[in-house]
Amino acid sequence: MTGLSRPAVSLRVTELLERGLVVEDSEGPSTGGRPPTRLAFNASGGVVLVASLGASRAQIAVCDLAGRELEREGLAVDVEEGPDVVLPLVMDTWAKLLGDRPISQLRGVGLGVPATVEFAAGRTESARIMASWTGVAIPPIIAERFPAPVFLDNDVNVIAIGEHRAVYAGEADDLLFIKVSTRIGSGVIAGGEILRGALGAAGEIGHIPVRDGGGVLCRCGNIDCVDSVASGTAILRDLRARGHQVETLADVVGLVRAGDAETMTVVRNAARMLGEVVASAVNLLNPAVVVLGGDVAETFQPMVSGVREVVHRRSTALSTRNLRIERSRLGPGAGIVGCAHMVLDHILSPEAVDSVS
Amino acid sequence: MTGLSRPAVSLRVTELLERGLVVEDSEGPSTGGRPPTRLAFNASGGVVLVASLGASRAQIAVCDLAGRELEREGLAVDVEEGPDVVLPLVMDTWAKLLGDRPISQLRGVGLGVPATVEFAAGRTESARIMASWTGVAIPPIIAERFPAPVFLDNDVNVIAIGEHRAVYAGEADDLLFIKVSTRIGSGVIAGGEILRGALGAAGEIGHIPVRDGGGVLCRCGNIDCVDSVASGTAILRDLRARGHQVETLADVVGLVRAGDAETMTVVRNAARMLGEVVASAVNLLNPAVVVLGGDVAETFQPMVSGVREVVHRRSTALSTRNLRIERSRLGPGAGIVGCAHMVLDHILSPEAVDSVS
Repeated sequence: MTGLSRPAVSLRVTELLERGLVVEDSEGPSTGGRPPTRLAFNASGGVVLVASLGASRAQIAVCDLAGRELEREGLAVDVEEGPDVVLPLVMDTWAKLLGDRPISQLRGVGLGVPATVEFAAGRTESARIMASWTGVAIPPIIAERFPAPVFLDNDVNVIAIGEHRAVYAGEADDLLFIKVSTRIGSGVIAGGEILRGALGAAGEIGHIPVRDGGGVLCRCGNIDCVDSVASGTAILRDLRARGHQVETLADVVGLVRAGDAETMTVVRNAARMLGEVVASAVNLLNPAVVVLGGDVAETFQPMVSGVREVVHRRSTALSTRNLRIERSRLGPGAGIVGCAHMVLDHILSPEAVDSVS
Repeated sequence: MTGLSRPAVSLRVTELLERGLVVEDSEGPSTGGRPPTRLAFNASGGVVLVASLGASRAQIAVCDLAGRELEREGLAVDVEEGPDVVLPLVMDTWAKLLGDRPISQLRGVGLGVPATVEFAAGRTESARIMASWTGVAIPPIIAERFPAPVFLDNDVNVIAIGEHRAVYAGEADDLLFIKVSTRIGSGVIAGGEILRGALGAAGEIGHIPVRDGGGVLCRCGNIDCVDSVASGTAILRDLRARGHQVETLADVVGLVRAGDAETMTVVRNAARMLGEVVASAVNLLNPAVVVLGGDVAETFQPMVSGVREVVHRRSTALSTRNLRIERSRLGPGAGIVGCAHMVLDHILSPEAVDSVS
């Protein structure tokens, strides 16, 4: 049992009781006289199915209504094979993880995908969500097998939601999450809510250019996009050009942890270029906290030093006065936690309860 | 009478009736049987006092509860003389414009100031607002003479609110307003609400650098901030360096309208540099519309051409798919309209009505 979360307090109590989302709790403080009915959120009143898809692996889980993992399994997938191949694999794993739990326990499904997800016009939380992953609308496919509301967002937005809800909610409700991995992406929390923009494309920092990138051609056709000069891919390329035998980003993290000076320099240079773009975003958004996540953020020290250096030089005084730049605390489980919170935000909203008879 | 605005619909009806904010309206369509009580928003149920302060002039007005001007007066002020000098001038003008109206009609006061305004922690609409204008908290000073809720925001945020509410509300709820005048600033509307960030500093695009600014030293100490290379001040400096006799931005607008090729080139070059920063903001925010306002936007054609050219080259495909880049439609009255809507958003919110007994 956890305390009632903010979005739930205005729900119709009888409906919540009927649906098992809250239970009466007699442990309230005694004030004499007739004890008030105290309601507690019933985290075991249902389950949500979640999956965080990466380019080559998926984390798949069943969570309770507090967002806690009940079951989890990792799966090798090639996301480029498309939804026809990947979705059945994910759904089979959900079915296995659900085990004997009755389908009536299912409250919602959440999926994070490594692609831009388009949202229908209007930005109400109950908007119908459209997927652009090879043009297929994913929610109906999932809902056919798992009859529950299905929510979809891009993987970086999902992690931003998870970082905010699990670590910063109420304390830092303006948050910029930056994922530095094979690519660079971001998710923006503004006033406690994910900022999606008009079409769901907000947070695309990867193709903002840096000032002195050296003229690197980006896969988008422009030059010196931060993604082309400061991503994990760019760091691997630069290290190989200097003769280092590095295969993966884990190798880069290992070299940094071993104190390899040249690797530290390459990572820090990349971080300075990333810092230029973060500085612009800080001026525009004035977040309370910038959270660095993704594989490259595992090298935290040179990464955060480079970003901080440039942000404090280039952002305005007020926007950096109380600014914190921190490493992701959720780590590899961030996608699962984020997916669960994305679903819970929706299914515990007053609109959602009103729409269920 | 106008239709009930969205924020008002959930207000307690009896309180609204008692306070004169709504009246019963018998003109609803007849459906036979007992006619339903139909409520209409009573725009004349009170007044708000608003002032839009610029560096050297103020627009001061009394508006009704639909945000329409009832009285208005322009005033020469030197905002740098500080609140001790400027606020009494503004308040005397409000008193004069109020005339015989009883103070009981007053529902709120709104002020836009050419400075960053700090907001208290937490971003609920009812948060106490703190001013950073020379460290003086403005609302209490005004409330002492005009006993009503006082709201304050920076002038560019206020205009962004006005543009959104008066022109785009419901149709384009993700909006980026750019003011290009003596300086460059912006206001961000995300999901229909102004984005303020953690401390109220959001929208500070003026000190985001451009890539090839030529090494111009900005007043902030950095180089090539967009404000130092693309603002009205920069355009005047560049034109004078080319031997043009230009005194004011109105002269620049006149030369553009007269088709002076060199002025067109200078403005368009400035607009291209502004476009770099707008392109970054479009990637990050995915607005439905970018609105260009301020004195330099009066030269709309070369300005918008330069901005569009760079935004369509440098922003992502999805973020520009339906993007509109338009000129401010409110023009010089935008500040007044924005202040009125800033106040009305607050005083017609459920929280505000709940807090008034």
